[in-house]
Amino acid sequence: MLARYMLDQSLSKDVLHGRPATMWRYQEQLPLLDNDHMVSLGEGMTPLLTLNRLAARHGLATVTLKDEGQNPTGSFKARGLSMAISKAKELGVEGCIIPTAGNAGVAMAAYCAKAGMAATVVMPRHTPQAFKEECYWYGADVHLIDGLINDCAAHVRQLNANGQWLDVSTLKEPYRIEGKKTMGYEIAEQMNWQLPDVILYPAGGGTGLIGIWKAFREMQEMGWLAPDVKLPRMVAVQAANCCPLIETLAGRQPNSQNYNGRPTIANGLAVPRPLGEALMLKVLEESNGTAVSITDDEMVEGMRELSRLEGLFVAPEGGAIWMAARQLLKTGWLRENEHMLLLNTGSGQKYMANVEGRY
Amino acid sequence: MLARYMLDQSLSKDVLHGRPATMWRYQEQLPLLDNDHMVSLGEGMTPLLTLNRLAARHGLATVTLKDEGQNPTGSFKARGLSMAISKAKELGVEGCIIPTAGNAGVAMAAYCAKAGMAATVVMPRHTPQAFKEECYWYGADVHLIDGLINDCAAHVRQLNANGQWLDVSTLKEPYRIEGKKTMGYEIAEQMNWQLPDVILYPAGGGTGLIGIWKAFREMQEMGWLAPDVKLPRMVAVQAANCCPLIETLAGRQPNSQNYNGRPTIANGLAVPRPLGEALMLKVLEESNGTAVSITDDEMVEGMRELSRLEGLFVAPEGGAIWMAARQLLKTGWLRENEHMLLLNTGSGQKYMANVEGRY
Ligand SMILES: Cc1ncc(COP(=O)(O)O)c(C=O)c1O
Ligand SMILES: Cc1ncc(COP(=O)(O)O)c(C=O)c1O
Repeated sequence: MLARYMLDQSLSKDVLHGRPATMWRYQEQLPLLDNDHMVSLGEGMTPLLTLNRLAARHGLATVTLKDEGQNPTGSFKARGLSMAISKAKELGVEGCIIPTAGNAGVAMAAYCAKAGMAATVVMPRHTPQAFKEECYWYGADVHLIDGLINDCAAHVRQLNANGQWLDVSTLKEPYRIEGKKTMGYEIAEQMNWQLPDVILYPAGGGTGLIGIWKAFREMQEMGWLAPDVKLPRMVAVQAANCCPLIETLAGRQPNSQNYNGRPTIANGLAVPRPLGEALMLKVLEESNGTAVSITDDEMVEGMRELSRLEGLFVAPEGGAIWMAARQLLKTGWLRENEHMLLLNTGSGQKYMANVEGRY
Repeated sequence: MLARYMLDQSLSKDVLHGRPATMWRYQEQLPLLDNDHMVSLGEGMTPLLTLNRLAARHGLATVTLKDEGQNPTGSFKARGLSMAISKAKELGVEGCIIPTAGNAGVAMAAYCAKAGMAATVVMPRHTPQAFKEECYWYGADVHLIDGLINDCAAHVRQLNANGQWLDVSTLKEPYRIEGKKTMGYEIAEQMNWQLPDVILYPAGGGTGLIGIWKAFREMQEMGWLAPDVKLPRMVAVQAANCCPLIETLAGRQPNSQNYNGRPTIANGLAVPRPLGEALMLKVLEESNGTAVSITDDEMVEGMRELSRLEGLFVAPEGGAIWMAARQLLKTGWLRENEHMLLLNTGSGQKYMANVEGRY
């Protein structure tokens, strides 16, 4: 289920002037009806940084990075959950439940606390302790499961068999993706309504990838993007330990419904059977994009380069996207003079236990 | 040494329109001469949140919180160090050294990495591991000292006896405070050029307190604050384990030069002999402010309330300021109908080891 808006060219992007520096500046394109229901911790309008030292070392023209680690609760998941919990509040919901690889659960717990709603979070037992502890601080009920996020999803269905809570699983409700899409609006606004040649994004469930693309289409429809602005090629970056998209694209499976993944230090990428697979593949196709997989060791190497050269302690997911860029440069798919935008989805802080001593 | 500007009323605050959402939007009031030297990770313009559930529970009219935990490296220290390292770059410096309670060292390490400068960080051995690890990721040289920040300062003097590195100790160079003062500008801009009645701030070395006050004075001079806008009463919040200001104010010592503090879970407040003591006391006096001390157990209680009711996992320093508000409400110094602004200086993430399991 995806939200559609009556978009036309009468809404000028001048409405943005003077609006607060959060994702809610795009309120006309978001599904909340009454701002009194907004549950916000200041999410969005994260910085778009220019990585000069990294570019120089690798002989590249323009590398930028959108640092989603500076969101509340340390990841881009804040956007989707701010939107979903706001809408839940508007609809009179009293509690929410979520299966999560970590970051989405923490974000849901925080926004539920702010909204005064009950929160039930179901995550893999092997998730680093920092994710669990933060949920406890927010007062969430946390269930630990042996397995990956799909096993957590099965447990959510059991726990919520009577439909007591609103299930905010990725793409099972239409609101999280509306929050996520604001990344696309921000990229355009921050680049003065131009776009990069390529966006590299760490894809698990895929809401970010699908959401950003949706934002580009909406902006085209409204005339916020000029007709000559080319949309970027989208790259879905996955973990070698769990890369269902790669397997499907390579024709080794019809789809990921029976794919088995293994854990990875990029916890958010351990999504073996994403509900949004078809939507993700469509984005890759429409954008002339591709998918790439990165090993855990490579992710650490990427984290090292970003921290040493650019002062950015990113999540392993962020390390992965930079290594994906390097891989695509090597194969020639990506050219040195192209503007590549790395979408770093989270801060490295809560992953410390996964990468301890590997600086 | 404090920077003075030729301020006059010819600079309109309209210059801010359309500027990026970082502290660098106030560039006319910052000492960098050439923007090419700017070393930025997107610091500043942190959200000002309204804490409705907390206010309702305690019968208060307006409680707002400025969430500095959403800065790069997770604390307000990013502002001071972005400014200091930018200026160091402009001056051709090749490496910096700092004694730190934790957050300032992490921030310096990150900005030095981004600038391509050497970084030497000297911190107490008992600082939580997360602070040290993050410095290692940025490639800093880290020295661990038995003692508090004043012992680290002594070690810095030894290490840097030949003046090889730029010493960016609090208030030993004039730039960090210029970065910190942008919090004052932001509070005014975010409140549409009004100000709260009271600001509660966790004071260690005191740059934030002094910097915010400096910003208010500058804005008065430039006419950015209307003559009828009253400046807030400033509250310096300290740890019961290390509260030199309280002791001096109570007349139990002429000043803090021989004060001995003990460690606290609010690592940033373990500053027993702040160089800026006289400047801090002057701010308290000019503003009709006061100082309050909070125990470690109370800080945890404050953290619990902020996380459960407002979805904010703050540093123990942030827990302390809320408990200080509660204490001042009890004594009648703070009234329930006053607008109180809590300046939360950092995220709780790196302090996890200090408060594990105490949610
Ligand atoms: C840091 C991080 N990056 C990327 C992802 C994958 O995001 P999505 O499921 O929207 O594709 C996650 C999901 O948990 C995450 O936490
Ligand atoms: C989170 C936090 N709050 C407050 C302080 C005290 O700041 P200042 O030294 O500017 O008074 C520090 C200093 O390390 C800190 O890290």
